[in-house]
Amino acid sequence: MATIFTKIVNGEIPCYKVAEDDRHIAFLDINPVTPGHTLVVPKHEVSYLFDLSDDEYVALELFAKKVAKGLREAMPCKRIGVTVIGLEVPHAHIHLLPITTEADMDFHHKSQLPGEEMESICARIREAVAKELD
Amino acid sequence: MATIFTKIVNGEIPCYKVAEDDRHIAFLDINPVTPGHTLVVPKHEVSYLFDLSDDEYVALELFAKKVAKGLREAMPCKRIGVTVIGLEVPHAHIHLLPITTEADMDFHHKSQLPGEEMESICARIREAVAKELD
Repeated sequence: MATIFTKIVNGEIPCYKVAEDDRHIAFLDINPVTPGHTLVVPKHEVSYLFDLSDDEYVALELFAKKVAKGLREAMPCKRIGVTVIGLEVPHAHIHLLPITTEADMDFHHKSQLPGEEMESICARIREAVAKELD
Repeated sequence: MATIFTKIVNGEIPCYKVAEDDRHIAFLDINPVTPGHTLVVPKHEVSYLFDLSDDEYVALELFAKKVAKGLREAMPCKRIGVTVIGLEVPHAHIHLLPITTEADMDFHHKSQLPGEEMESICARIREAVAKELD
């Protein structure tokens, strides 16, 4: 069965998309740990990050680097934190989080933002990431 | 002033080293979140992960992938979790954590293990990672 991320890739489930290329997609986490919390996902459905081929893995990490650069431009933060847990959804994904303190990385503190705020954040990040992907 | 990681690279501060190549070093975190918690560090002292050149960044991520594979062989766990926070030490580093549940990634729960246990864990991981680096 297709994972929820493959359904997002295929447009069967909507998302707040911030970037996409041939092999990857990036969209806002629906329960952000910090505002702008973004998921970076390879379109090829592989469960475990380190089971990706070196080529797929490198392409994903370079795509994530560009998304992180745009994200840092778009959101008020010191840096972009990175987390890969990989036990919830069997489809490799990288969490990118705008953070100002170490405590911001606390995955116990997931939030829900109003749709309008998500749309506005998404638009801001999408514009900044587009410049990095150019 | 050299960061604590540069001092480790230069051998001025001891570490439980699990792997090394020309450009990178990996060693046990002295306050592990889970047993086997490993730091992967580029020898080139750059503060922020995403400020590494693409070449340096890709080399670091591929080195981390090999360390992660050995780590998963060596330690009882489901997967290797990944975290980059980057606000504590101004020298880019990737945390690799053997995890079985999402809760294992909780950076509030740092521990301290007896030296003998750290040595034994280190030896086990070093052996498994060496096979990946071959």
